[in-house]
Amino acid sequence: MNNWTGLTPMARIEVVIEGEHEHIIRDLLISAGATGYTALHGVSGLGHGGQHEGRLLFNDRNSLSMLISIVPIDSAESLIAGIRRVRDNHHGVMFVRETHVSRPEYFRSGDESA
Amino acid sequence: MNNWTGLTPMARIEVVIEGEHEHIIRDLLISAGATGYTALHGVSGLGHGGQHEGRLLFNDRNSLSMLISIVPIDSAESLIAGIRRVRDNHHGVMFVRETHVSRPEYFRSGDESA
Amino acid sequence: MNNWTGLTPMARIEVVIEGEHEHIIRDLLISAGATGYTALHGVSGLGHGGQHEGRLLFNDRNSLSMLISIVPIDSAESLIAGIRRVRDNHHGVMFVRETHVSRPEYFRSGDESA
Repeated sequence: MNNWTGLTPMARIEVVIEGEHEHIIRDLLISAGATGYTALHGVSGLGHGGQHEGRLLFNDRNSLSMLISIVPIDSAESLIAGIRRVRDNHHGVMFVRETHVSRPEYFRSGDESA
Repeated sequence: MNNWTGLTPMARIEVVIEGEHEHIIRDLLISAGATGYTALHGVSGLGHGGQHEGRLLFNDRNSLSMLISIVPIDSAESLIAGIRRVRDNHHGVMFVRETHVSRPEYFRSGDESA
Repeated sequence: MNNWTGLTPMARIEVVIEGEHEHIIRDLLISAGATGYTALHGVSGLGHGGQHEGRLLFNDRNSLSMLISIVPIDSAESLIAGIRRVRDNHHGVMFVRETHVSRPEYFRSGDESA
């Protein structure tokens, strides 16, 4: 991974969930201290059923939403745990990776910076 | 790269292709053992022509699709090779990177886990 | 980070900006030597206000655009600096990370390869 000059590493959390449950993840993100998110609507998907569920989670229709949120790496773990709990009841997939931003203060909640 | 507690590294393969050829990549993903994908439609793009092609691959119109699929790192290479072969005939761009998921079993096909 | 066989590391620059300012970033990308971009329209978002601005940058409406561009790592820094300057006047968020592509020549401008 490169060290981008002047950029700060953050956690990027991406959740694909049925559109009708999008508000649950949005509320979770904000209540967990995320300062914002980007939402893509009308996403379609197939799977990811796997042998664990024994059936498809998603059919191929345009009713999914993708929510992307950038949070400080320090606070990512508790947020990931919260999303996992929600997802136990509302199917979805979550991807987490590191990204780099130029204005880290945008993604830190007031409580954390106080 | 952080080690996210409880998350498993996987390969994230992202393909941007003309919408009319989306089904070819979808079929390839599934036949290669991917358990699912997320599709974004109505994507537009410019380029990426480069000097190799000598012309634009995409014009700026909303007829592109972006397909995202998560697969085990072990099986990524053969899938990437397959996408490359398709792409030789149907223009498109492919990006690959590592991501982390909380339920790796969702992204493993039955054959692999058997 | 894995070393993907036959893939070349590149910088992936992602900008979320109000749709009406999308053309400014597009022009900047191309004039800075990016050979193309992918654009997602109708994106919505909340935040990222933070304490720096003291107000929300985005409300939750579908008027945002997400622009994704792949550029050689060597030329990423000057492009990032340019986007930062634009963003001082036009709110937006930018994420940068490494990705891997199979045809790096697609993402290199003629000037650079000459």
